[in-house]
Amino acid sequence: MRNVKLTIEYDGTNYNGWQVQNSKFKIQNLKLKTIQEEIEKAIEKITAKKSKLYGSGRTDSGVHARAQVANFHTNTSLSLNKLKRGLNAVLPKDISIIKTEEADKDFHSRFNVKSKIYRYTILNRNSQSPFLKRYSLHLPYKLNLLLMKKEARVLLGKHNFKSFAATGKIEKSAVRAIKRITVNKNEDSLITIDIEADGFLYNMVRNIVGTLIEIGRGKLSPGSMKQILNAKDRTKAGPTAKACGLCLIRVKY
Amino acid sequence: MRNVKLTIEYDGTNYNGWQVQNSKFKIQNLKLKTIQEEIEKAIEKITAKKSKLYGSGRTDSGVHARAQVANFHTNTSLSLNKLKRGLNAVLPKDISIIKTEEADKDFHSRFNVKSKIYRYTILNRNSQSPFLKRYSLHLPYKLNLLLMKKEARVLLGKHNFKSFAATGKIEKSAVRAIKRITVNKNEDSLITIDIEADGFLYNMVRNIVGTLIEIGRGKLSPGSMKQILNAKDRTKAGPTAKACGLCLIRVKY
Repeated sequence: MRNVKLTIEYDGTNYNGWQVQNSKFKIQNLKLKTIQEEIEKAIEKITAKKSKLYGSGRTDSGVHARAQVANFHTNTSLSLNKLKRGLNAVLPKDISIIKTEEADKDFHSRFNVKSKIYRYTILNRNSQSPFLKRYSLHLPYKLNLLLMKKEARVLLGKHNFKSFAATGKIEKSAVRAIKRITVNKNEDSLITIDIEADGFLYNMVRNIVGTLIEIGRGKLSPGSMKQILNAKDRTKAGPTAKACGLCLIRVKY
Repeated sequence: MRNVKLTIEYDGTNYNGWQVQNSKFKIQNLKLKTIQEEIEKAIEKITAKKSKLYGSGRTDSGVHARAQVANFHTNTSLSLNKLKRGLNAVLPKDISIIKTEEADKDFHSRFNVKSKIYRYTILNRNSQSPFLKRYSLHLPYKLNLLLMKKEARVLLGKHNFKSFAATGKIEKSAVRAIKRITVNKNEDSLITIDIEADGFLYNMVRNIVGTLIEIGRGKLSPGSMKQILNAKDRTKAGPTAKACGLCLIRVKY
């Protein structure tokens, strides 16, 4: 049996995320579909057989991906190229398979992850952008970028990130390792916050970004990040930044 | 009387261009509005008086802008900042005023242009992108980038660009000066073709791009660009590349 690895780009605006979170604390919009469902339907259409699709992890409702990874087992004799074309032909326009590969029979998109990189995008200028409104958070006020960079570095390394995990969600351990965290602003007033980690707690990136924004605008004082991290208490951190600014940009194996 | 200069970003997908072309040879979609109309309506709402808006030039139906420039005369006492906020509050979401400035009383957005820069974007990979489908031309086949770069350079300088002008459109002179033309590809398979000129004939960028694509895919042989330029004959050049890939990125004064 073949094990096919997919790399997927999607605009998450109109989806209930990769897969509906099994959660009591969050009301999902049940009218919306999930990315996983859509791709599973497409696989069934193209291979004439149902297959279970394993994603590298869930992305939340409204979150985008430039390179989500998933795999499925199949007996189809279709070539990788034909599979890709076939899937893209039946998938909705906001989901695109950008790569199909044969994976080892033991490969699992979720269990084999070494690290993932998320990017959060902030449009930091007076006016909204027609091009970026679906893909960024619009913040018109001034942000202290140097301070944000400095406070972000506090999170580097292995820590208990409980302060940045969604409350109510039970995870075995809140310890994760952040390998890289960068805050940059380009000439088009776009601030990008990239975070690479071995894994992420539910809402972790958006809660870190929400906290960095509070620091950048002066609502939290310099040194806050260390205190918040040490507190292991979600109520100490900033609010959850909007989903539309978040994008899964790479999964490393 | 004040002379207010606007810098405007817009997603042209749902518009009949900046202003409907007064043309017998092209059927416009009359149900669609124009960018100029929308901004004139917004100015009337905010200043309580009709004003004529002068653009740096027309962008065609479906073409985008990251920094179109326009000006209008007004007696309003509103500050530049309040004008900007007011206009953005009433404009549709796909048009955004990103800058308001006081201009000299003689400033005219069109007559004072020194040069303009257009960017054409091609997504050159197998699969479409959910993020870029409104803002790029999707070409799945291989393009010879080096050859495209070389042939593009033939167009540098002052020439009669009749071969790249829309047929049927009468202009006094087809002589324009291209100051810069670059063809680049980035790691995300995006090819950008930037052209800076003192002025552009109707459809000129899209016809140059259409020709470069034919060269890049081998349908026109090396050396074609010089022959086409010298022919001063539209039928020798390549087809008009789709509007959605084109964006006005800067107007210099």
